[in-house]
Amino acid sequence: METMKVIQTRCSLKSQLSEKPIEPEKLKQVLDAACLAPSARNMQPWRFVVVEGQKQIEAFVAAAVPEVNAMIKQAPVIVVACARPGDDVAHDGKEYYLYDVGMAMENLVLAATDLGLVTHMMTNFNEAEIRKILKIPEEVRVVVITPLAYPKAGSYAESSKERLGQRTRKPFGEVAYFGQWQEQEPA
Amino acid sequence: METMKVIQTRCSLKSQLSEKPIEPEKLKQVLDAACLAPSARNMQPWRFVVVEGQKQIEAFVAAAVPEVNAMIKQAPVIVVACARPGDDVAHDGKEYYLYDVGMAMENLVLAATDLGLVTHMMTNFNEAEIRKILKIPEEVRVVVITPLAYPKAGSYAESSKERLGQRTRKPFGEVAYFGQWQEQEPA
Repeated sequence: METMKVIQTRCSLKSQLSEKPIEPEKLKQVLDAACLAPSARNMQPWRFVVVEGQKQIEAFVAAAVPEVNAMIKQAPVIVVACARPGDDVAHDGKEYYLYDVGMAMENLVLAATDLGLVTHMMTNFNEAEIRKILKIPEEVRVVVITPLAYPKAGSYAESSKERLGQRTRKPFGEVAYFGQWQEQEPA
Repeated sequence: METMKVIQTRCSLKSQLSEKPIEPEKLKQVLDAACLAPSARNMQPWRFVVVEGQKQIEAFVAAAVPEVNAMIKQAPVIVVACARPGDDVAHDGKEYYLYDVGMAMENLVLAATDLGLVTHMMTNFNEAEIRKILKIPEEVRVVVITPLAYPKAGSYAESSKERLGQRTRKPFGEVAYFGQWQEQEPA
């Protein structure tokens, strides 16, 4: 699909997860897309743990995901994005491993959207439990988890229609300034 | 262009910046793409300051960009991506404003690539000088800067060919694990 169309139609669809299995080659494609992201000094700090199979996913979700997001156990795949802060640059408190994993995951969700798959990135989880279950070393941070699934409705377009209709973004002038900072005080 | 093709051909091209002006509508398109990124609780922490015009760009680069990257003064536009840490969630030291700005900037560079424009994100700059020049408030962090330009060679494909030929990425098995953490100790 055209890049701009994918950027415009990507949305977070945790309520639209089908149990239909995902072909290994499609999973590989979205992970490959993630790995093509840029990173500071090309350090590629991202690491992905793929959680698959009903039994592992149910145990993972029961132990580490808040009840409000427990519906992600329906997905055939959960991707757990991790990184070591020390595998990337930091400048005066800005730890770029988070920035670089963000770029990789944006590639991943765009590639998924392009393939008609749904995602929903989440930052709220029990990091200690995830480390324990997936045997992730102590110094590695779990940054984001996302289910990866075919859409419940017949197509991505159908599954995303309602959510895209409700999408809100700040007015352009509130986030883009020309020449210098131009933030307005709230009226 | 197809999404996967854009993801595969996006690369950092600071040595390929033409001075040719960028149409305001194209600049708007890449900034709009950035704003369509997801963010934690849809908080949209990103703010973009657009630096334009030879005089402002030369002063900006002289004051805030290391000599090794001074060639970005040739670009007709420099985008400065900023955010307030407090405008996003943080979990146990993970400040997601960096993650969310990373997603927005990945959208921006992919949209630019799609339009045949070149970019090169940089994390190494004098943040205090940038705040002073662009009148950015103290509590706002400058996260990344990138030039935005037409390619010096006739096309994006020509300008990126050499760089893409030199691209390196870690082997898939070093970054993607199945079922649990599977990192190998270096041999």
